[in-house]
Amino acid sequence: MRAGIVGLGRMGRTHAENIVNNIPSIKLVAACSIFEEELIYAKENLLVEETYTDFESMIDNANLDLVLVVAGAEVRPSMVKYAIEKGVHTFAEKPLGLTISEIEEVVEVIEKNKDKTKFQLGFMRRFDEDYLYAKEIIDNGDIGEITYIRAYGIDPSSGLDTFVKFAKNSNSGGLYHDMSIHDIDVIRWLTGREFKRVWATGANFARPELDNVGELETGIAQAQLDNGIMVHLVAGRNAPHGYQVETEIMGTKGWLRIAPVPEKNMVTIFDNNGVKRHCSASFPERFKQAFINELSHFVKCIKENKEPKVTAYDGLIATKVALTCKKSLEENKIIEI
Amino acid sequence: MRAGIVGLGRMGRTHAENIVNNIPSIKLVAACSIFEEELIYAKENLLVEETYTDFESMIDNANLDLVLVVAGAEVRPSMVKYAIEKGVHTFAEKPLGLTISEIEEVVEVIEKNKDKTKFQLGFMRRFDEDYLYAKEIIDNGDIGEITYIRAYGIDPSSGLDTFVKFAKNSNSGGLYHDMSIHDIDVIRWLTGREFKRVWATGANFARPELDNVGELETGIAQAQLDNGIMVHLVAGRNAPHGYQVETEIMGTKGWLRIAPVPEKNMVTIFDNNGVKRHCSASFPERFKQAFINELSHFVKCIKENKEPKVTAYDGLIATKVALTCKKSLEENKIIEI
Amino acid sequence: MRAGIVGLGRMGRTHAENIVNNIPSIKLVAACSIFEEELIYAKENLLVEETYTDFESMIDNANLDLVLVVAGAEVRPSMVKYAIEKGVHTFAEKPLGLTISEIEEVVEVIEKNKDKTKFQLGFMRRFDEDYLYAKEIIDNGDIGEITYIRAYGIDPSSGLDTFVKFAKNSNSGGLYHDMSIHDIDVIRWLTGREFKRVWATGANFARPELDNVGELETGIAQAQLDNGIMVHLVAGRNAPHGYQVETEIMGTKGWLRIAPVPEKNMVTIFDNNGVKRHCSASFPERFKQAFINELSHFVKCIKENKEPKVTAYDGLIATKVALTCKKSLEENKIIEI
Amino acid sequence: MRAGIVGLGRMGRTHAENIVNNIPSIKLVAACSIFEEELIYAKENLLVEETYTDFESMIDNANLDLVLVVAGAEVRPSMVKYAIEKGVHTFAEKPLGLTISEIEEVVEVIEKNKDKTKFQLGFMRRFDEDYLYAKEIIDNGDIGEITYIRAYGIDPSSGLDTFVKFAKNSNSGGLYHDMSIHDIDVIRWLTGREFKRVWATGANFARPELDNVGELETGIAQAQLDNGIMVHLVAGRNAPHGYQVETEIMGTKGWLRIAPVPEKNMVTIFDNNGVKRHCSASFPERFKQAFINELSHFVKCIKENKEPKVTAYDGLIATKVALTCKKSLEENKIIEI
Repeated sequence: MRAGIVGLGRMGRTHAENIVNNIPSIKLVAACSIFEEELIYAKENLLVEETYTDFESMIDNANLDLVLVVAGAEVRPSMVKYAIEKGVHTFAEKPLGLTISEIEEVVEVIEKNKDKTKFQLGFMRRFDEDYLYAKEIIDNGDIGEITYIRAYGIDPSSGLDTFVKFAKNSNSGGLYHDMSIHDIDVIRWLTGREFKRVWATGANFARPELDNVGELETGIAQAQLDNGIMVHLVAGRNAPHGYQVETEIMGTKGWLRIAPVPEKNMVTIFDNNGVKRHCSASFPERFKQAFINELSHFVKCIKENKEPKVTAYDGLIATKVALTCKKSLEENKIIEI
Repeated sequence: MRAGIVGLGRMGRTHAENIVNNIPSIKLVAACSIFEEELIYAKENLLVEETYTDFESMIDNANLDLVLVVAGAEVRPSMVKYAIEKGVHTFAEKPLGLTISEIEEVVEVIEKNKDKTKFQLGFMRRFDEDYLYAKEIIDNGDIGEITYIRAYGIDPSSGLDTFVKFAKNSNSGGLYHDMSIHDIDVIRWLTGREFKRVWATGANFARPELDNVGELETGIAQAQLDNGIMVHLVAGRNAPHGYQVETEIMGTKGWLRIAPVPEKNMVTIFDNNGVKRHCSASFPERFKQAFINELSHFVKCIKENKEPKVTAYDGLIATKVALTCKKSLEENKIIEI
Repeated sequence: MRAGIVGLGRMGRTHAENIVNNIPSIKLVAACSIFEEELIYAKENLLVEETYTDFESMIDNANLDLVLVVAGAEVRPSMVKYAIEKGVHTFAEKPLGLTISEIEEVVEVIEKNKDKTKFQLGFMRRFDEDYLYAKEIIDNGDIGEITYIRAYGIDPSSGLDTFVKFAKNSNSGGLYHDMSIHDIDVIRWLTGREFKRVWATGANFARPELDNVGELETGIAQAQLDNGIMVHLVAGRNAPHGYQVETEIMGTKGWLRIAPVPEKNMVTIFDNNGVKRHCSASFPERFKQAFINELSHFVKCIKENKEPKVTAYDGLIATKVALTCKKSLEENKIIEI
Repeated sequence: MRAGIVGLGRMGRTHAENIVNNIPSIKLVAACSIFEEELIYAKENLLVEETYTDFESMIDNANLDLVLVVAGAEVRPSMVKYAIEKGVHTFAEKPLGLTISEIEEVVEVIEKNKDKTKFQLGFMRRFDEDYLYAKEIIDNGDIGEITYIRAYGIDPSSGLDTFVKFAKNSNSGGLYHDMSIHDIDVIRWLTGREFKRVWATGANFARPELDNVGELETGIAQAQLDNGIMVHLVAGRNAPHGYQVETEIMGTKGWLRIAPVPEKNMVTIFDNNGVKRHCSASFPERFKQAFINELSHFVKCIKENKEPKVTAYDGLIATKVALTCKKSLEENKIIEI
């Protein structure tokens, strides 16, 4: 299956290298970027046949079966619409756009073309083996009815200074849209329920200067789902030990904790500091297999003409909840969704 | 040091047996109860010299250095005031009363007599070795500034049916006053800060009948402290594996988790279910040494004429926060404290 | 790179499916087996172009760059020699044969042809990320000099009955050759040292009938390496919780434990049995990525004309040590190697 | 119950302070030592009524119900015999002496007087709650028949330099007699079986100078019990993280690991080194409650005229096995016991 990719930043390279090294069913033939060094990298390291600086040219000329849209969130809506309308199966990173209205437009185009062109959104956690294992236990009824979920999505402290620099010049979309969006999707997926109301609040103790640019180093939220399930979210950019993506599900008969310690591997170290485990340092490391699995799933859906598990609608709703968190933070009050 | 005790229910017996078996510096000489079987137990098992059915008689006649007030919360205020005014050093279980105003009166009496008569409240977690170890790490600055605290206080599922029966006829004071009060105190103690606003909510998935009696099987809260520290509380009566008292402290440089798994001991079991740890089943088991330590501390303060670490004022504030949680739950809104 | 495979039992299928699903750089074009159902499986599931019932025919006709020899240990020596002499790069499963002398012959042929034809032996643990991580820590000097190594290789109890049936009619080669051979290789690899003397002993408490067929349900050994490093081995077929491959390395400055609990994933389960982790159930599960990595390494060595990390000589030595353990067991005494 | 103690080194102080602070049923009234500072400590810190420099004087004059013999192993035999013959219940630290023959004499005296005078040996691990919990699981049959036991007794690296200095001038009795003796007793107690043959070996990688004084920094042994149970022992003085007393019991249906990580408490620390637990630093810390429990058990046996659980015979056998390990180490061969 011939694939192209647009955007070869950190996330784009993660996908591209997974395809080249780990996914025999996809052949990466074309890359598109506005940065020359990304195109050089694509030719030399990914060995793509063709490179483009214009997305529409790539879609029109490269004879692709599928395309990965990993460029910035501000250009994703138009790209996804173009590819879908040209009949190229499209995988896009989240979020699908920066505003609700532009995402709604994309959802509409996808919906209209869904019989002939497949779309999948990059909520890779649904393809992570830990999350799938937990989902199976829940669906078996082993933990009874879900009562409470706690979800952490916290980037490592090692990236905090870089983020502070970035935040002075750019817009992350806000902590909840940038980080909690995965947790919001996971909670919807695990429970089959929708968020109903939320109170979000945050603080900048390590880097008070983030106050000035409207960003958060740590943010939390408390929410209720439509059937009364209770939720706590913690998002942040200052986990001292690594990349802390942790999810706890309390049921009436049992609880699950996914990655309470984000173990890097199965090596335990005994030294003069005590007994320790090293931790995952980043999302490409933690979710390497999930990124591979989500693309394999997409290929399978294309081949078997099935609906991919993650839809554009899932992205729309997750964005709505994340933006409501942001509004709640700004107004410091409970907001209904 | 001659001691008396009033109230020999589960908590009273915990204290009494600790004194008899583990605290050489206290001699338990008198017991008071309105239940005859408790007095029989006191004579036969605790080997006390004298038993009383009237608290004031015990204080007037038993020549006590100190008294433990463990009887029901509705009678604690008058008992504590009587003992203090008679010059008997008094240790009382929490809460100090059921309403803010009656606790305020007790605080006033204690304050007035503090030069000659010592008082200590039963927030035993401040004397638990795990909590003390965490406090020392925090006070050393090893984890930087505290950003976020998560505190769970959840009774085991094994007691849920008993609680449901109890709740039909009695008043627990509400989940937050009954369970979260310890977490509230621990958070004040660890941070040196006060609660500012809170939103509490709850649900009864395992025992919906608790809705009818205004009780909760699981309740949560989100709060801010006066300097912006963020807090999540979870309280409940349905932990499938044991007695889950867990506290997480995120600092700008490190995090601590106290008892994420409430390990019963250091035995790991490998069997056809996987690899597991058994858990503490109850508060007398989990905090056995803390209960001993708090009384040893009280004796030491009496002997050395020092102020005990836990004051009646601490109890008053913790009750205020817990009752605010209850109000927030009832009104489903954020309330300022 | 065009590959063929001979032998499509459990181990052969593990390799074949990894190639088809996870290794884009290898194309599996041919399969050879004496069992018709294995060839049907190869055509239908692996989609190979050609199937053979005779190994030499496959080598002569299928135009292979490389071949995987996974058929039974009794036929491996002749197959490896044939493929190597015909200039087909060869990857073979361990052990390379059943006797020292036949393995020595194979080593000689490989050695003679090494300039033009590559060979690699299937000690996949050297390619496991946990073992590689430990090796890096050791090579950095972080744990000082190695003093003691403990290595467990124990199959799950779930396979015990199957093994007992198998053992009545077949020859596993003995517990040490079948199971400890990986541990022996890992110890040589981690330390760069050779085994010097060993005492092995075993017992059959769960299945005493294994005594009659000269097999062991659990066997242990104590050994010294040539520089005095001390070793404990435990091998077996009765781990109640899963597939227990665990290695401990004590150094003068630190210790490492690789997989003391063979965690299946990062999900912790809290239920009425306590708090538990589920475990890996088998070698294809535990070492899935290592099996992929070892083949990727072999392809890389072929392409870059480099010597693969695991040689036939490594297999020869590991077999010698394993067979010495067997002899020590039979004579119940310390034997020099 | 009036108690005296002889020997107030590290172990003596551990017992003495436990009595004074934690065991209401024993009153420590007399102390004996040949070191003046120990007697000053006893008067000032333990508040004993009387001090002695001569053991026999203490026994003759202090009107004791029981005595703790914690002085050096070379004087224990005569002291225990004297106290027992004078009718004073005697608790003695292990080992009961340095040679088999002198211990046999002590056992004989104790045996002759057992109807009127109680004796208990200080194998405190039998009173540790973790070991008792494991024993209960084993005795319930939950893990089936015991197949293999691994026991580690390793002092922390922090004491290694002190030990090296000590070893140049003194005799520890050898690593197995000093450290493994507890493991040997635990194995006898858990299995109800006796050691049959052993091969022991050791090495000094961190402190090669220990070779010159016939001491070991790390020693191991492999043994068989009389019914075929297999045993691995590791003893040492160089655990980088703390005091590693770990015991693993593999049964035909389940395994137990006691303290694979010797957790100091229930605090988990997340920092830039990873996620870690701090560890117990010493035997008085690790076994504090076991030391208290063993004395409480002794008092109970005296009061109820029952046989204490740990006999002098247990000490005799454990010493025999430990000395056989030493001989095996010296001759580097398997020795029958």
